[in-house]
Amino acid sequence: MSQTRIVQVRAGILKKNDELAHALRARFEAAGVFVVNLVSSPGTGKTQFLERTLGDLVAAGVRTAALVGDLETDHDAQRLARSGAPARQINTHGRCHLEAEMIGEFLGEWELSTLDFLFIENVGNLVCPASYDLGEAMRVALLSVTEGEDKPLKYPTMFNSADVAVITKIDLAEACEFDRAAAHAAIEEVRPGMTIVEVSAKRGTGMDDWMTLLHARRAAWRRLREVPAPA
Amino acid sequence: MSQTRIVQVRAGILKKNDELAHALRARFEAAGVFVVNLVSSPGTGKTQFLERTLGDLVAAGVRTAALVGDLETDHDAQRLARSGAPARQINTHGRCHLEAEMIGEFLGEWELSTLDFLFIENVGNLVCPASYDLGEAMRVALLSVTEGEDKPLKYPTMFNSADVAVITKIDLAEACEFDRAAAHAAIEEVRPGMTIVEVSAKRGTGMDDWMTLLHARRAAWRRLREVPAPA
Repeated sequence: MSQTRIVQVRAGILKKNDELAHALRARFEAAGVFVVNLVSSPGTGKTQFLERTLGDLVAAGVRTAALVGDLETDHDAQRLARSGAPARQINTHGRCHLEAEMIGEFLGEWELSTLDFLFIENVGNLVCPASYDLGEAMRVALLSVTEGEDKPLKYPTMFNSADVAVITKIDLAEACEFDRAAAHAAIEEVRPGMTIVEVSAKRGTGMDDWMTLLHARRAAWRRLREVPAPA
Repeated sequence: MSQTRIVQVRAGILKKNDELAHALRARFEAAGVFVVNLVSSPGTGKTQFLERTLGDLVAAGVRTAALVGDLETDHDAQRLARSGAPARQINTHGRCHLEAEMIGEFLGEWELSTLDFLFIENVGNLVCPASYDLGEAMRVALLSVTEGEDKPLKYPTMFNSADVAVITKIDLAEACEFDRAAAHAAIEEVRPGMTIVEVSAKRGTGMDDWMTLLHARRAAWRRLREVPAPA
Protein backbone atom coordinates (compact mmCIF):
# COMPACT_ATOMS: atom_id res chain seq x y z
CA MET A 1 0.00 0.00 0.00
CA SER A 2 1.72 3.21 -1.10
CA GLN A 3 1.62 6.34 1.05
CA THR A 4 -0.16 8.20 -1.78
CA ARG A 5 -2.93 5.61 -1.85
CA ILE A 6 -3.46 5.87 1.93
CA VAL A 7 -3.69 9.64 1.70
CA GLN A 8 -6.22 9.34 -1.11
CA VAL A 9 -8.37 6.96 0.93
CA ARG A 10 -8.23 9.30 3.94
CA ALA A 11 -9.16 12.28 1.76
CA GLY A 12 -12.10 10.27 0.41
CA ILE A 13 -13.38 9.47 3.90
CA LEU A 14 -13.08 13.10 4.99
CA LYS A 15 -14.78 14.38 1.83
CA LYS A 16 -17.74 12.08 2.42
CA ASN A 17 -17.89 13.23 6.05
CA ASP A 18 -17.83 16.89 5.01
CA GLU A 19 -20.74 16.38 2.65
CA LEU A 20 -22.80 14.67 5.34
CA ALA A 21 -21.82 17.36 7.87
CA HIS A 22 -22.94 20.04 5.43
CA ALA A 23 -26.36 18.41 5.17
CA LEU A 24 -26.60 18.06 8.96
CA ARG A 25 -25.72 21.75 9.43
CA ALA A 26 -28.52 22.75 7.05
CA ARG A 27 -30.93 20.51 8.99
CA PHE A 28 -29.87 22.03 12.34
CA GLU A 29 -30.27 25.58 10.99
CA ALA A 30 -33.70 24.84 9.57
CA ALA A 31 -34.74 23.44 12.95
CA GLY A 32 -33.22 26.37 14.87
CA VAL A 33 -31.16 24.09 17.12
CA PHE A 34 -27.71 25.28 18.19
CA VAL A 35 -25.37 22.30 18.15
CA VAL A 36 -22.26 22.15 20.34
CA ASN A 37 -19.52 19.53 19.79
CA LEU A 38 -17.44 18.86 22.94
CA VAL A 39 -13.96 17.47 22.34
CA SER A 40 -11.14 16.61 24.77
CA SER A 41 -8.88 13.85 26.02
CA PRO A 42 -10.42 11.02 27.98
CA GLY A 43 -10.78 12.08 31.60
CA THR A 44 -11.03 15.84 31.14
CA GLY A 45 -14.46 15.73 32.70
CA LYS A 46 -16.62 16.25 29.60
CA THR A 47 -19.47 14.16 30.96
CA GLN A 48 -19.61 15.82 34.37
CA PHE A 49 -19.41 19.25 32.71
CA LEU A 50 -22.16 18.34 30.26
CA GLU A 51 -24.37 16.80 32.95
CA ARG A 52 -24.18 20.07 34.89
CA THR A 53 -24.77 22.13 31.73
CA LEU A 54 -27.85 20.10 30.79
CA GLY A 55 -29.18 20.29 34.35
CA ASP A 56 -28.76 24.06 34.51
CA LEU A 57 -30.45 24.50 31.11
CA VAL A 58 -33.33 22.18 32.01
CA ALA A 59 -33.82 24.06 35.29
CA ALA A 60 -34.04 27.32 33.32
CA GLY A 61 -36.67 25.86 30.99
CA VAL A 62 -34.32 25.67 28.00
CA ARG A 63 -35.05 22.78 25.65
CA THR A 64 -31.95 20.67 25.31
CA ALA A 65 -30.70 17.17 24.49
CA ALA A 66 -27.44 15.26 24.09
CA LEU A 67 -25.73 12.61 22.01
CA VAL A 68 -22.69 10.98 23.56
CA GLY A 69 -20.02 8.89 21.86
CA ASP A 70 -17.91 6.17 23.46
CA LEU A 71 -16.17 3.10 22.14
CA GLU A 72 -18.19 0.90 24.49
CA THR A 73 -20.69 1.16 27.41
CA ASP A 74 -23.70 3.43 27.87
CA HIS A 75 -22.43 4.84 31.19
CA ASP A 76 -22.30 8.40 29.88
CA ALA A 77 -25.81 8.49 28.43
CA GLN A 78 -27.09 7.17 31.78
CA ARG A 79 -25.22 9.90 33.64
CA LEU A 80 -26.43 12.62 31.28
CA ALA A 81 -30.03 11.46 31.51
CA ARG A 82 -29.96 12.24 35.25
CA SER A 83 -30.08 15.90 34.20
CA GLY A 84 -33.63 15.43 32.94
CA ALA A 85 -32.61 16.05 29.31
CA PRO A 86 -32.94 13.24 26.76
CA ALA A 87 -29.59 11.61 25.97
CA ARG A 88 -28.68 8.97 23.41
CA GLN A 89 -25.52 6.87 23.48
CA ILE A 90 -23.51 6.20 20.32
CA ASN A 91 -21.09 3.25 20.62
CA THR A 92 -18.36 3.46 18.01
CA HIS A 93 -17.04 -0.07 18.70
CA GLY A 94 -13.38 0.75 18.31
CA ARG A 95 -13.55 3.92 16.22
CA CYS A 96 -11.73 6.78 17.85
CA HIS A 97 -14.06 9.63 16.88
CA LEU A 98 -17.63 10.44 15.93
CA GLU A 99 -18.49 10.96 12.26
CA ALA A 100 -21.33 12.92 10.67
CA GLU A 101 -22.88 9.67 9.45
CA MET A 102 -23.22 8.39 13.04
CA ILE A 103 -24.89 11.64 14.12
CA GLY A 104 -27.43 11.38 11.29
CA GLU A 105 -28.11 7.75 12.11
CA PHE A 106 -28.60 8.27 15.87
CA LEU A 107 -30.70 11.40 15.45
CA GLY A 108 -33.06 9.35 13.31
CA GLU A 109 -36.44 11.02 13.20
CA TRP A 110 -35.83 13.14 16.31
CA GLU A 111 -37.95 16.31 15.99
CA LEU A 112 -35.12 18.83 16.25
CA SER A 113 -37.33 21.89 16.11
CA THR A 114 -38.41 21.07 19.69
CA LEU A 115 -34.84 21.80 20.87
CA ASP A 116 -32.87 24.99 21.55
CA PHE A 117 -29.56 23.23 22.13
CA LEU A 118 -28.15 19.84 21.14
CA PHE A 119 -24.84 18.82 22.71
CA ILE A 120 -22.61 16.18 21.17
CA GLU A 121 -20.02 14.70 23.49
CA ASN A 122 -17.30 13.27 21.27
CA VAL A 123 -15.11 10.23 21.99
CA GLY A 124 -12.28 11.17 24.37
CA ASN A 125 -9.38 11.76 21.99
CA LEU A 126 -7.31 14.89 21.37
CA VAL A 127 -6.37 13.95 17.80
CA CYS A 128 -8.83 12.33 15.42
CA PRO A 129 -12.13 14.10 16.30
CA ALA A 130 -10.50 17.37 15.13
CA SER A 131 -10.76 16.20 11.51
CA TYR A 132 -14.45 15.29 11.59
CA ASP A 133 -17.01 18.05 11.18
CA LEU A 134 -20.31 16.98 12.76
CA GLY A 135 -22.32 19.92 11.45
CA GLU A 136 -21.98 21.72 14.78
CA ALA A 137 -22.36 25.49 15.20
CA MET A 138 -19.71 25.62 17.92
CA ARG A 139 -16.82 23.34 18.79
CA VAL A 140 -15.56 23.42 22.37
CA ALA A 141 -12.17 21.99 23.34
CA LEU A 142 -11.88 21.07 27.02
CA LEU A 143 -8.63 20.90 28.95
CA SER A 144 -8.42 19.97 32.62
CA VAL A 145 -6.00 21.48 35.11
CA THR A 146 -4.68 17.96 35.76
CA GLU A 147 -3.47 17.41 32.19
CA GLY A 148 -0.51 19.73 31.77
CA GLU A 149 -0.51 23.28 30.50
CA ASP A 150 1.22 22.53 27.19
CA LYS A 151 -1.48 20.23 25.75
CA PRO A 152 -2.65 22.89 23.22
CA LEU A 153 0.91 23.08 21.82
CA LYS A 154 1.16 19.31 21.59
CA TYR A 155 -2.30 18.86 20.05
CA PRO A 156 -2.59 22.09 18.04
CA THR A 157 -5.20 20.94 15.51
CA MET A 158 -7.75 20.23 18.20
CA PHE A 159 -7.45 23.69 19.70
CA ASN A 160 -7.05 25.36 16.32
CA SER A 161 -10.28 23.88 15.03
CA ALA A 162 -12.27 24.78 18.16
CA ASP A 163 -14.23 27.98 18.81
CA VAL A 164 -14.00 28.06 22.60
CA ALA A 165 -11.66 26.52 25.19
CA VAL A 166 -13.00 25.37 28.55
CA ILE A 167 -10.53 24.70 31.36
CA THR A 168 -12.13 22.12 33.66
CA LYS A 169 -11.59 20.86 37.24
CA ILE A 170 -10.46 24.31 38.32
CA ASP A 171 -11.14 23.20 41.92
CA LEU A 172 -8.04 20.97 41.60
CA ALA A 173 -5.80 23.79 40.32
CA GLU A 174 -3.91 24.24 43.57
CA ALA A 175 -3.47 20.51 44.24
CA CYS A 176 -2.08 20.11 40.70
CA GLU A 177 0.11 23.23 40.88
CA PHE A 178 -1.69 24.35 37.73
CA ASP A 179 0.11 27.21 35.96
CA ARG A 180 -2.82 29.29 34.71
CA ALA A 181 -0.71 31.83 32.79
CA ALA A 182 1.14 29.05 30.95
CA ALA A 183 -2.13 27.34 29.97
CA HIS A 184 -3.64 30.59 28.67
CA ALA A 185 -0.42 31.38 26.77
CA ALA A 186 -0.42 27.93 25.15
CA ILE A 187 -4.03 28.35 24.00
CA GLU A 188 -3.29 31.88 22.78
CA GLU A 189 -0.30 30.61 20.81
CA VAL A 190 -2.26 28.03 18.81
CA ARG A 191 -5.49 30.05 18.56
CA PRO A 192 -4.96 33.78 19.15
CA GLY A 193 -7.94 35.51 20.72
CA MET A 194 -9.78 32.31 21.61
CA THR A 195 -12.38 32.70 24.34
CA ILE A 196 -11.44 30.74 27.46
CA VAL A 197 -13.86 29.78 30.21
CA GLU A 198 -12.68 28.25 33.50
CA VAL A 199 -15.04 25.97 35.37
CA SER A 200 -15.47 23.43 38.10
CA ALA A 201 -18.54 21.39 37.24
CA LYS A 202 -18.27 19.75 40.64
CA ARG A 203 -18.38 23.03 42.61
CA GLY A 204 -20.35 25.06 40.05
CA THR A 205 -17.56 27.63 39.65
CA GLY A 206 -17.67 29.44 36.31
CA MET A 207 -20.91 27.80 35.17
CA ASP A 208 -22.67 31.18 35.03
CA ASP A 209 -20.03 32.48 32.61
CA TRP A 210 -20.45 29.36 30.51
CA MET A 211 -24.25 29.76 30.43
CA THR A 212 -23.91 33.41 29.41
CA LEU A 213 -21.54 32.42 26.61
CA LEU A 214 -23.87 29.65 25.37
CA HIS A 215 -26.86 31.98 25.12
CA ALA A 216 -24.82 34.81 23.55
CA ARG A 217 -23.34 32.50 20.92
CA ARG A 218 -26.72 31.04 20.08
CA ALA A 219 -28.26 34.51 19.75
CA ALA A 220 -25.42 35.68 17.47
CA TRP A 221 -25.72 32.51 15.39
CA ARG A 222 -29.45 33.05 14.95
CA ARG A 223 -28.99 36.68 13.93
CA LEU A 224 -26.22 35.86 11.45
CA ARG A 225 -28.02 32.99 9.81
CA GLU A 226 -31.53 34.31 10.23
CA VAL A 227 -32.44 31.09 11.92
CA PRO A 228 -36.19 30.97 12.59
CA ALA A 229 -37.36 31.99 16.05
CA PRO A 230 -38.50 29.18 18.36
CA ALA A 231 -42.08 28.02 17.77
CA MET B 1 -15.41 4.60 -1.08
CA SER B 2 -17.09 1.42 0.15
CA GLN B 3 -16.79 0.27 3.76
CA THR B 4 -15.15 -2.96 2.57
CA ARG B 5 -12.43 -1.04 0.75
CA ILE B 6 -11.70 1.06 3.86
CA VAL B 7 -11.41 -2.05 5.99
CA GLN B 8 -9.04 -3.60 3.42
CA VAL B 9 -6.81 -0.52 3.45
CA ARG B 10 -6.73 -0.52 7.25
CA ALA B 11 -5.88 -4.22 7.31
CA GLY B 12 -3.06 -3.53 4.84
CA ILE B 13 -1.57 -0.80 7.03
CA LEU B 14 -1.76 -2.98 10.13
CA LYS B 15 -0.23 -5.99 8.34
CA LYS B 16 2.75 -3.90 7.21
CA ASN B 17 3.12 -2.56 10.78
CA ASP B 18 3.05 -6.08 12.21
CA GLU B 19 5.81 -7.21 9.87
CA LEU B 20 8.00 -4.25 10.82
CA ALA B 21 7.22 -4.80 14.53
CA HIS B 22 8.23 -8.45 14.19
CA ALA B 23 11.62 -7.40 12.77
CA LEU B 24 12.07 -4.81 15.53
CA ARG B 25 11.29 -7.38 18.21
CA ALA B 26 13.95 -9.72 16.80
CA ARG B 27 16.45 -6.82 16.82
CA PHE B 28 15.60 -5.94 20.45
CA GLU B 29 15.99 -9.56 21.55
CA ALA B 30 19.31 -9.94 19.77
CA ALA B 31 20.53 -6.78 21.51
CA GLY B 32 19.18 -7.87 24.91
CA VAL B 33 17.23 -4.64 25.39
CA PHE B 34 13.87 -4.83 27.18
CA VAL B 35 11.47 -2.45 25.44
CA VAL B 36 8.51 -0.92 27.26
CA ASN B 37 5.70 0.88 25.37
CA LEU B 38 3.80 3.39 27.56
CA VAL B 39 0.25 4.21 26.44
CA SER B 40 -2.41 6.44 27.97
CA SER B 41 -4.66 9.46 27.39
CA PRO B 42 -3.04 12.84 27.09
CA GLY B 43 -2.43 14.22 30.57
CA THR B 44 -2.14 10.97 32.51
CA GLY B 45 1.39 11.94 33.47
CA LYS B 46 3.36 9.57 31.23
CA THR B 47 6.25 12.00 30.85
CA GLN B 48 6.62 12.77 34.54
CA PHE B 49 6.38 9.06 35.36
CA LEU B 50 8.95 8.20 32.71
CA GLU B 51 11.30 11.02 33.74
CA ARG B 52 11.27 9.64 37.28
CA THR B 53 11.71 6.05 36.03
CA LEU B 54 14.69 6.99 33.87
CA GLY B 55 16.24 9.02 36.69
CA ASP B 56 15.89 6.14 39.18
CA LEU B 57 17.38 3.66 36.68
CA VAL B 58 20.28 5.98 35.79
CA ALA B 59 21.00 6.50 39.50
CA ALA B 60 21.14 2.72 39.95
CA GLY B 61 23.60 2.36 37.07
CA VAL B 62 21.07 0.72 34.74
CA ARG B 63 21.61 1.57 31.06
CA THR B 64 18.45 3.08 29.69
CA ALA B 65 17.10 5.37 26.96
CA ALA B 66 13.78 6.70 25.66
CA LEU B 67 11.90 7.54 22.49
CA VAL B 68 8.92 9.85 22.89
CA GLY B 69 6.12 10.52 20.44
CA ASP B 70 4.07 13.70 20.13
CA LEU B 71 2.20 15.34 17.30
CA GLU B 72 4.32 18.49 17.68
CA THR B 73 6.98 20.02 20.01
CA ASP B 74 10.06 18.45 21.57
CA HIS B 75 9.02 19.40 25.12
CA ASP B 76 8.89 15.81 26.28
CA ALA B 77 12.31 14.77 25.00
CA GLN B 78 13.75 17.83 26.74
CA ARG B 79 12.04 16.85 30.00
CA LEU B 80 13.15 13.23 29.74
CA ALA B 81 16.76 14.20 28.99
CA ARG B 82 16.92 15.90 32.42
CA SER B 83 17.03 12.36 33.86
CA GLY B 84 20.50 11.86 32.36
CA ALA B 85 19.26 9.17 29.96
CA PRO B 86 19.40 9.79 26.20
CA ALA B 87 15.97 10.68 24.78
CA ARG B 88 14.86 11.21 21.19
CA GLN B 89 11.67 12.98 20.13
CA ILE B 90 9.46 11.62 17.36
CA ASN B 91 7.03 14.19 15.93
CA THR B 92 4.14 12.50 14.16
CA HIS B 93 2.80 15.73 12.59
CA GLY B 94 -0.86 14.91 12.99
CA ARG B 95 -0.73 11.12 13.29
CA CYS B 96 -2.42 9.93 16.43
CA HIS B 97 -0.10 7.03 17.31
CA LEU B 98 3.42 5.70 16.84
CA GLU B 99 4.08 3.02 14.23
CA ALA B 100 6.83 0.43 14.02
CA GLU B 101 8.27 2.20 10.96
CA MET B 102 8.79 5.42 12.98
CA ILE B 103 10.58 3.49 15.73
CA GLY B 104 12.93 1.89 13.22
CA GLU B 105 13.62 5.23 11.59
CA PHE B 106 14.33 7.12 14.82
CA LEU B 107 16.46 4.34 16.30
CA GLY B 108 18.64 4.57 13.22
CA GLU B 109 22.05 3.08 13.96
CA TRP B 110 21.67 3.35 17.74
CA GLU B 111 23.82 0.59 19.32
CA LEU B 112 21.02 -1.13 21.24
CA SER B 113 23.29 -3.70 22.89
CA THR B 114 24.56 -0.87 25.14
CA LEU B 115 21.08 -0.63 26.72
CA ASP B 116 19.21 -2.67 29.33
CA PHE B 117 15.90 -0.84 28.89
CA LEU B 118 14.39 1.26 26.12
CA PHE B 119 11.16 3.11 26.92
CA ILE B 120 8.80 4.30 24.21
CA GLU B 121 6.32 6.97 25.28
CA ASN B 122 3.46 6.78 22.81
CA VAL B 123 1.25 9.66 21.64
CA GLY B 124 -1.40 10.46 24.26
CA ASN B 125 -4.43 8.59 22.92
CA LEU B 126 -6.47 5.78 24.46
CA VAL B 127 -7.64 4.36 21.14
CA CYS B 128 -5.35 4.12 18.14
CA PRO B 129 -1.99 3.18 19.71
CA ALA B 130 -3.63 -0.07 20.90
CA SER B 131 -3.61 -1.38 17.32
CA TYR B 132 0.07 -0.70 16.60
CA ASP B 133 2.64 -3.21 17.83
CA LEU B 134 6.01 -1.46 18.23
CA GLY B 135 7.98 -4.64 18.88
CA GLU B 136 7.88 -3.99 22.63
CA ALA B 137 8.35 -6.71 25.25
CA MET B 138 5.87 -5.08 27.64
CA ARG B 139 3.00 -2.67 27.09
CA VAL B 140 1.96 -0.52 30.03
CA ALA B 141 -1.39 1.29 30.11
CA LEU B 142 -1.45 4.29 32.45
CA LEU B 143 -4.59 5.68 34.07
CA SER B 144 -4.59 8.68 36.38
CA VAL B 145 -6.83 9.09 39.42
CA THR B 146 -8.18 12.29 37.83
CA GLU B 147 -9.61 10.55 34.76
CA GLY B 148 -12.54 8.52 36.03
CA GLU B 149 -12.54 4.95 37.23
CA ASP B 150 -14.47 3.53 34.26
CA LYS B 151 -11.91 4.38 31.55
CA PRO B 152 -10.85 0.72 31.12
CA LEU B 153 -14.48 -0.22 30.36
CA LYS B 154 -14.82 2.61 27.86
CA TYR B 155 -11.46 1.95 26.16
CA PRO B 156 -11.24 -1.83 26.56
CA THR B 157 -8.81 -2.54 23.71
CA MET B 158 -6.11 -0.37 25.22
CA PHE B 159 -6.28 -2.17 28.56
CA ASN B 160 -6.84 -5.55 26.95
CA SER B 161 -3.72 -5.26 24.83
CA ALA B 162 -1.54 -4.10 27.75
CA ASP B 163 0.50 -6.27 30.13
CA VAL B 164 0.51 -3.99 33.16
CA ALA B 165 -1.71 -1.13 34.38
CA VAL B 166 -0.17 1.80 36.24
CA ILE B 167 -2.48 4.13 38.18
CA THR B 168 -0.77 7.55 38.31
CA LYS B 169 -1.12 10.75 40.36
CA ILE B 170 -2.13 8.73 43.42
CA ASP B 171 -1.25 11.82 45.53
CA LEU B 172 -4.41 13.43 44.08
CA ALA B 173 -6.66 10.47 44.95
CA GLU B 174 -8.35 12.16 47.88
CA ALA B 175 -8.82 15.54 46.14
CA CYS B 176 -10.42 13.69 43.19
CA GLU B 177 -12.53 11.41 45.39
CA PHE B 178 -10.91 8.53 43.50
CA ASP B 179 -12.76 5.22 43.98
CA ARG B 180 -9.87 2.76 44.11
CA ALA B 181 -12.03 -0.38 44.28
CA ALA B 182 -14.05 0.72 41.23
CA ALA B 183 -10.89 1.39 39.19
CA HIS B 184 -9.41 -2.00 40.09
CA ALA B 185 -12.71 -3.73 39.27
CA ALA B 186 -12.88 -2.00 35.87
CA ILE B 187 -9.34 -3.13 35.01
CA GLU B 188 -10.08 -6.64 36.27
CA GLU B 189 -13.21 -6.79 34.12
CA VAL B 190 -11.42 -6.04 30.84
CA ARG B 191 -8.17 -7.86 31.69
CA PRO B 192 -8.61 -10.41 34.50
CA GLY B 193 -5.51 -10.87 36.62
CA MET B 194 -3.68 -7.85 35.24
CA THR B 195 -0.91 -6.53 37.49
CA ILE B 196 -1.71 -3.05 38.79
CA VAL B 197 0.87 -0.66 40.22
CA GLU B 198 -0.14 2.60 41.92
CA VAL B 199 2.30 5.49 41.84
CA SER B 200 2.83 9.17 42.38
CA ALA B 201 5.83 10.17 40.28
CA LYS B 202 5.75 13.56 41.96
CA ARG B 203 6.02 12.18 45.51
CA GLY B 204 7.86 8.96 44.63
CA THR B 205 5.10 6.75 46.06
CA GLY B 206 5.03 3.28 44.55
CA MET B 207 8.16 3.79 42.45
CA ASP B 208 9.97 0.99 44.31
CA ASP B 209 7.20 -1.46 43.37
CA TRP B 210 7.45 -0.30 39.78
CA MET B 211 11.24 -0.77 39.74
CA THR B 212 10.90 -4.25 41.21
CA LEU B 213 8.35 -5.13 38.54
CA LEU B 214 10.55 -3.78 35.72
CA HIS B 215 13.55 -5.83 36.78
CA ALA B 216 11.47 -8.98 37.40
CA ARG B 217 9.78 -8.74 34.01
CA ARG B 218 13.10 -8.19 32.25
CA ALA B 219 14.65 -11.17 34.03
CA ALA B 220 11.70 -13.42 33.13
CA TRP B 221 11.82 -12.21 29.52
CA ARG B 222 15.52 -13.01 29.28
CA ARG B 223 15.06 -16.49 30.76
CA LEU B 224 12.12 -17.30 28.48
CA ARG B 225 13.76 -16.07 25.32
CA GLU B 226 17.32 -16.98 26.23
CA VAL B 227 18.28 -13.42 25.53
CA PRO B 228 22.08 -13.02 25.78
CA ALA B 229 23.45 -11.73 29.09
CA PRO B 230 24.65 -8.13 29.15
CA ALA B 231 28.19 -7.63 27.81
